[in-house]
Amino acid sequence: MADTYFLRRVFPFLDWAGAYNRQTLLNDGTAAVIVTIMLIPQSLAYAMLAGLPPQMGLYASILPLVAYAIFGTSRTLAVGPVAVVSLMSATAVGAVVGNNGEGFVEAAMLLALLCGGILVVLGVLRLGFLANFLSHPVISGFISASGVLIAVSQLKHILGIHVSGHNLLHLLPSLVSGLPQTNFYTLAIGLVSLIFLYGVRIYLDPLLSRLHVPASWRQFLVKAGPVFAVIGTTLATLAFNLSEKGVQTVGDVPMGLPQLHLPAFDLEMAQALLLPAFIISLIGFVESISVAQTLAARRRQRISPNRELVALGAANLASGISGGYSVTGGFARSVVNFDAGAETPAAGALTAIGIALATLFLTPLIYNLPKATLASTIIVAVLSLVDIKMMREIWAYSKQDFIAMATTIALTWGVGVEAGVASGVLLSILLHLYRTSRPHYAVVGRVPGTEHFRNIDRHDVDTCDTLLTLRVDESLYFANARFLEDQVYAAIAQRPHLKHLVLMCPAVNAIDASALESLGAINERLEAAGITFHLSEVKGPVMDHLKRSHFLKALTGQIFLSQYDAYQALSRQMPTKTGGSSST
Amino acid sequence: MADTYFLRRVFPFLDWAGAYNRQTLLNDGTAAVIVTIMLIPQSLAYAMLAGLPPQMGLYASILPLVAYAIFGTSRTLAVGPVAVVSLMSATAVGAVVGNNGEGFVEAAMLLALLCGGILVVLGVLRLGFLANFLSHPVISGFISASGVLIAVSQLKHILGIHVSGHNLLHLLPSLVSGLPQTNFYTLAIGLVSLIFLYGVRIYLDPLLSRLHVPASWRQFLVKAGPVFAVIGTTLATLAFNLSEKGVQTVGDVPMGLPQLHLPAFDLEMAQALLLPAFIISLIGFVESISVAQTLAARRRQRISPNRELVALGAANLASGISGGYSVTGGFARSVVNFDAGAETPAAGALTAIGIALATLFLTPLIYNLPKATLASTIIVAVLSLVDIKMMREIWAYSKQDFIAMATTIALTWGVGVEAGVASGVLLSILLHLYRTSRPHYAVVGRVPGTEHFRNIDRHDVDTCDTLLTLRVDESLYFANARFLEDQVYAAIAQRPHLKHLVLMCPAVNAIDASALESLGAINERLEAAGITFHLSEVKGPVMDHLKRSHFLKALTGQIFLSQYDAYQALSRQMPTKTGGSSST
Repeated sequence: MADTYFLRRVFPFLDWAGAYNRQTLLNDGTAAVIVTIMLIPQSLAYAMLAGLPPQMGLYASILPLVAYAIFGTSRTLAVGPVAVVSLMSATAVGAVVGNNGEGFVEAAMLLALLCGGILVVLGVLRLGFLANFLSHPVISGFISASGVLIAVSQLKHILGIHVSGHNLLHLLPSLVSGLPQTNFYTLAIGLVSLIFLYGVRIYLDPLLSRLHVPASWRQFLVKAGPVFAVIGTTLATLAFNLSEKGVQTVGDVPMGLPQLHLPAFDLEMAQALLLPAFIISLIGFVESISVAQTLAARRRQRISPNRELVALGAANLASGISGGYSVTGGFARSVVNFDAGAETPAAGALTAIGIALATLFLTPLIYNLPKATLASTIIVAVLSLVDIKMMREIWAYSKQDFIAMATTIALTWGVGVEAGVASGVLLSILLHLYRTSRPHYAVVGRVPGTEHFRNIDRHDVDTCDTLLTLRVDESLYFANARFLEDQVYAAIAQRPHLKHLVLMCPAVNAIDASALESLGAINERLEAAGITFHLSEVKGPVMDHLKRSHFLKALTGQIFLSQYDAYQALSRQMPTKTGGSSST
Repeated sequence: MADTYFLRRVFPFLDWAGAYNRQTLLNDGTAAVIVTIMLIPQSLAYAMLAGLPPQMGLYASILPLVAYAIFGTSRTLAVGPVAVVSLMSATAVGAVVGNNGEGFVEAAMLLALLCGGILVVLGVLRLGFLANFLSHPVISGFISASGVLIAVSQLKHILGIHVSGHNLLHLLPSLVSGLPQTNFYTLAIGLVSLIFLYGVRIYLDPLLSRLHVPASWRQFLVKAGPVFAVIGTTLATLAFNLSEKGVQTVGDVPMGLPQLHLPAFDLEMAQALLLPAFIISLIGFVESISVAQTLAARRRQRISPNRELVALGAANLASGISGGYSVTGGFARSVVNFDAGAETPAAGALTAIGIALATLFLTPLIYNLPKATLASTIIVAVLSLVDIKMMREIWAYSKQDFIAMATTIALTWGVGVEAGVASGVLLSILLHLYRTSRPHYAVVGRVPGTEHFRNIDRHDVDTCDTLLTLRVDESLYFANARFLEDQVYAAIAQRPHLKHLVLMCPAVNAIDASALESLGAINERLEAAGITFHLSEVKGPVMDHLKRSHFLKALTGQIFLSQYDAYQALSRQMPTKTGGSSST
C-alpha cells in the first residue's frame, strides 16, 4: 500500500491509467489532433525566435510531451516551446556563444538540460516556493515587455533585413538603419499574413457564429489560422518563385525522428548558462503552474506544485537529449487542449505522436515556407501578451507594485530579459521590506462606555495622562524593530507624566529575535525612565514563543489578555496616585 | 522662528548651548578628563589594529569629536576609533593596497571620507532604515565573531612574530607556523599585561569596594587600568633595554597637531572601497545608535536616527581630512562619559582638547611602549564583545534567527568581515521571506453558543458541510500569495459538497498586487467550480485599498464585517437548501 502510494506520487499517470477507456481515448485523441495542427506552425516559429533550426521546435514538441504525460499532475497542461522562453533561450545562448556562433544548437540543448536539472532538483527539494519571489507585477510586467521585445525582434523577418540585439536599445537603431534594405516581396508576404492572422483572431469567430457554425468547429478554425497562412504563403512562394526574389524561406528541414544524443558538454559554458537557466526555469514554472491551476480548478482537480517542477524538469531533460530546447507549459495550447475535451495527459502523448508523424512526412512541404509568415504568427501571438489593462489596474491599486513593474519593463527593454527579471525581483523584495519597515501604528484610547479601543486621531476616545497605549499593525521583525523603538521613545519624550506604556498586539503574527531584542531594550529604557511596560492581546503562538525567552521575566509590567483588562488595571491606579500626591 | 527651527535641526548644539553654565562646564570637564585618560591607550591600540601608525588613532580622536559635538543629537555619545570598525578598515584597505602597501595611510583616510560621505547622504535622504536590514542576530553574531577574530589577530604582537591574514583560515595556520619564532621577552610583557588588565577588570572593583573607596573613584581606577599597564611596561622596556632584545615598541610618533589635508584621490581605489565603506558605515551606525538610544532613554532624552547619520558622517569626514581613519560611537567610552557626569556634547569637545594636548606633549613618552601591551589592551577589551549568552538565548528563541547568526559567524571567521555581514543580511532576508511565505492558517469553526471562531484542529467547534472558513494569520503578499491559492485548492478538492468559502482576515495587515491577483484567481476558479467566495473581518486600511481594485466587483460573495455575520448568513442558507432538496 505504501509502495503504491510512493509510485503514484512519482508517476501520477497511475492515477488515471486504470480508468482509461474508449471514450477517454476518443476525447484525448480529438484534442490531440487539434493541438497538433496548432503546434506545428508554432513550433517552427518559436524555434526561429530562439535562433534555432525549425526542426528543433518540432523535436521539442515530441519527447517532452511524453515525459510530461508520465510525470505531470495536471490533466490538461500542454507543454512545448513557448514565446517568452524561446526569447530567453536565444538571449542566454547568444550571450555565451555569439549570435551566429558555431555551437548555438548544442548550447541550446545544454541549456534545456540545465533547466531540466534545476527544475527536478527544485522539485525534489520542495523549493517551489522560490517562484513566489517572482511577484505578480514583476511577472506581468516582464511578460508584457517580452511581448513587445519579441514583436520588435521579429520585424526583421517581415522586412527581410538583418538586425541584431537582445534589447530595444540595440534592436531599434539596427532596425532603422536596415530599413533601406527592405525586401518588398518579403514585406508583402509578412503584411498579408499579419492582416490575415489578425483578422482571423478578431473577426472569424463572430463571422462563423453568424453562419451558425458550431462553437467547437469555430474555435478549431480560429486556432488553425496560422496553418492556413502557412499553406497559403508557401504556395504563393512556390507559384511566384519568390525565394529567388530574396524571400527567405525555412529551407531544408531534415526528415525523420530526432536522434537521441547528449549535447557536447563544456563546463565553462555550463557555468555561464547556469544563472540564465535558473531564471528561465522559474519563469517557465510560474507561467506553467498558473495555467495548470486555472484549468485544474475548473474541474475541481488538484495539481502539486513540487511535482509539477519535477514533471517540467523531466520534459526539459527529454528535450535536451532529443535535439530540442527549453520547453514549458503554454497558455494558448493548454486552453485549446482543455476546451477540445482532453481528459488525461494521454492527450499530450497523442499530440507527440502527431508531431512525430509531421517530422516523418511533412518537412519537405515546408521548404518554401517564408520566414515572414512564421514571424507574423509570432507577432500576432505575442502582442496578446501585452496587458495594458493590468498595468492600469496595478497603478490604481498600488504605486509601490507599479514601480516594481515599471522597473522590470524598463530593464527588460533597455538591457535584456535577465536583467529585467532580476531587477524586478530585487526591487519587489526591497519594497516589501521597506513597506513593513514602517508599519501602521496608532495611539489608541477607549471608546467611552465600551470595551473597544480606537485610534485617538480618528475617534473621540478616553485617554489618561499616565497611561499610553500603542497599537502596532504588523508582525515585528528586524526590518521594523528599530522603527518601533524610535516611535516609543518619541512618544515618551513628549509625555512627562507617563507611568505605563501598553503595546497592543492583536495584529502581531510573529516576533523575531531582533524585535525581541528591541522589546527588551524598550523595557529596560522605560524602566530607567520610571515607566512600566506592558503588552496586551498577544496571540497564542507569539506568546508560546515569548515564553522561550527571558523577556517575560524582565518585563516590568504585565501581559493582559485584553486591552480592556489593561485599561481597567492601569488607569485605575492613576486616580489613587493623583489622590496620594494631592494629599501631600 | 522657522529659521531657528531649521538651524536647530542642523545644529543641535543650539538646543543646549544657551543654558550652558559653570556647573555644566564642571561636569562636562570632569567627564572629559576621565574619557581622555581612557582614550589615549585605546586610540593607539586601535590604530595598531587598523594597521595604521599610532598617531592616526589620536588624530581620529580630536576633530571627529568636535564635529560630533556640533551635529550630534546624543548628549553623551563618545565617538572615536573602535575595535570592530578598526578591523574592518584594516581588512578593506588591505584588500585594496595590500597589507604592507605604500598607500595604506592614504587609503584609510579615503575610506573615512567615503564613510563620511555615505553617512551624510543616508542621513539627508532619511535612509536610516537601511540599517534595519542588519538584524539583531546578524549584528550580534558579527560582533562576537569579530571579537574572536581581533583577539586572534593580536596574538602575533603578544608572541612577537609575524602573521598575516584577515580570517581564521589564514591567521591560525600562520600563527602556528610562526610559533617557533616566539620572542619570550615580548611574550612575558604580553602575558603580564594580559593578566594585569584582566585582574583589574574582574577583581579591582570588589577589592576597592571592600576598602571603602567611593564608587566614582573605583570606576575611574578600573577604566584607567590600561594607562597603568602602558606606564609599567614602558618603564620596564626602558629599564631592561628590552627593545634591543627584540621587543617591538611603538617607536617614533610625530609630535604636534594633525595637519589638515585631503588624501590623494584615486577613482579606482575609491570604487574598490565603496562597498566596504557602505558596510562599515552601516555597522558603525547600528552600534552607535544603539548606545546613544540606551543612554538617551535613561534621561528621557531623544535622539534622531537620521540626524545621527549626518553627525557620524561629519565625524568621519573630519577624521578623513585630519589624518585620522573611520570612527563611530563607542560603547565603553560613552558609558564612562555618561557615568562620569557628562551633560552635553561639549564634554566631547573637551575630550578632543585633552587628546590634542596629548599629541602635543606626550608622544615622546610612548617611544618605548611595547606593542604587546597595546595588543593585550585590545584582547581584554574585545573578548567582552563575545556574547555566548546571547547565542544561547537566540538558539532557544528561534532556530531560524540562530541559523542567520551562525552563518554570519562562520563566514566572518572563514572568509572575512564583509562576507560575514553580507551573507548574514542576505540570509536574514531570505529566511524572513521563507517564514512569511508559509503563513500560519487554520480552518475555523464556531465555538458552540458563542460568536467566537477557533481552529477546528484544536477546539470542539461547529462546522457545516457547505461552508468552509479559512483564517490566515499573515499579511498577504507576493511571497505567500500562491501558498494561499494552493491551500484553498487543496481544501476544496477534499470537500465535494462545498458551496461557500470564507477567508477570515483579522490578521491581514496588507494585500499587495500579487495577493490581489491570487484572490482574483481564487474567486474565478471557485466560481468555475460552483463555490461562492467571501471575506470576513477585513481591516479598514486593507478594505480602503481593495476598493481601488476590480476585485470587489468580481467577488462572487460578500464581505462580512464579522465572521459571526458570515456564519449566520451562510450556514442559514444550508438548512433551507438541504430542506429544499429533501422535499424534491
